[in-house]
Amino acid sequence: MTRLEDQIAFVVEIDKLKGVLRENPTANGERRENTAEHSWQLAMAAMVLAEHANEPVDVALVVRMLLVHDLVEIDAGDTFVYLTMDAAGRDEQNQREQVAAERIFGLLPPDQGAEMRATWDEFEAAQTAEARFAKAVDRLAPMLLNRASGGGSWKRHSIDPAQTHRLVEAQMTAGSAALTSYAHELIDRSVADGLYTVDE
Amino acid sequence: MTRLEDQIAFVVEIDKLKGVLRENPTANGERRENTAEHSWQLAMAAMVLAEHANEPVDVALVVRMLLVHDLVEIDAGDTFVYLTMDAAGRDEQNQREQVAAERIFGLLPPDQGAEMRATWDEFEAAQTAEARFAKAVDRLAPMLLNRASGGGSWKRHSIDPAQTHRLVEAQMTAGSAALTSYAHELIDRSVADGLYTVDE
Repeated sequence: MTRLEDQIAFVVEIDKLKGVLRENPTANGERRENTAEHSWQLAMAAMVLAEHANEPVDVALVVRMLLVHDLVEIDAGDTFVYLTMDAAGRDEQNQREQVAAERIFGLLPPDQGAEMRATWDEFEAAQTAEARFAKAVDRLAPMLLNRASGGGSWKRHSIDPAQTHRLVEAQMTAGSAALTSYAHELIDRSVADGLYTVDE
Repeated sequence: MTRLEDQIAFVVEIDKLKGVLRENPTANGERRENTAEHSWQLAMAAMVLAEHANEPVDVALVVRMLLVHDLVEIDAGDTFVYLTMDAAGRDEQNQREQVAAERIFGLLPPDQGAEMRATWDEFEAAQTAEARFAKAVDRLAPMLLNRASGGGSWKRHSIDPAQTHRLVEAQMTAGSAALTSYAHELIDRSVADGLYTVDE
């Protein structure tokens, strides 16, 4: 295949991300969100919220990270975030995602595959200001949708609000103190509004 | 509302783009594509295909354009591209989209709303290398999905392949000669494979 044909094949292959369903619903509560549209919304959120990052960030890099950060789910599937709170769950997810990354980024011409893989690795490692902010946005967005839809995966999976508070601490503080505060308040308001009621 | 609250309200409002359905299906043919996931795929395609632009482009700007280019569809709906081939159809669509842009970009803090509106205006005007390339990518992507899914909106709307050839000429040549050639060949291969058969 020519270089262009490889690139086109990649663009068609990643269409599968539209079929990967996440645990949280869309804001209107009508259906589960898919990972492709989730990635779009994160990129938009990053553009709009970048001023709240703890450190100045290269917004274009954050956007690029968020667009590619979940491509591995095409093979590895979406892992409900509350299942990654223990080390065993995280290791298992990491292993599947590394195999997926090899295959998916490997579809591109080698120079482009290596570059996109590096962007994904940077996101995963969370050692740069951009990656830390991207992680914070990735954590906040599903909370906005759970709240907007009247409970979403909090209700569906009988989540304890203390667990969400812990996730926010673990995944958002390094990227954005302002969004972390907002997220904690959002949980408290959602508890007050009955959105964490166990759904039996 | 505070600045952060306005920004969050915007992120939640644009969730509605996930519910705007386009005429073309996803690559697996299982359902119609929505505009949010379409925007994500275009941004990815732009990153991967940028080297085929007629002129050097700022890829980050192309990505930003493609992420925001269809936000107006939240209010104005998706207009099937073949209905915009005459001036009356285009004017009608433009009018609806201008009203939508006022409202939607107006949800953001004024500085951010003006900046995003300017990005959208630049895309619409198609007077810069970035906008021209973004338009070419926007035209190519649904063709890839129609082909992958076995005909898609070509079959569903009994499209004549000559119409698609004309659209490609009108919307892709200014942005990318290489992608234009690829698109014309894709149409010819799709005709040969029976994907333009009228579906009765």
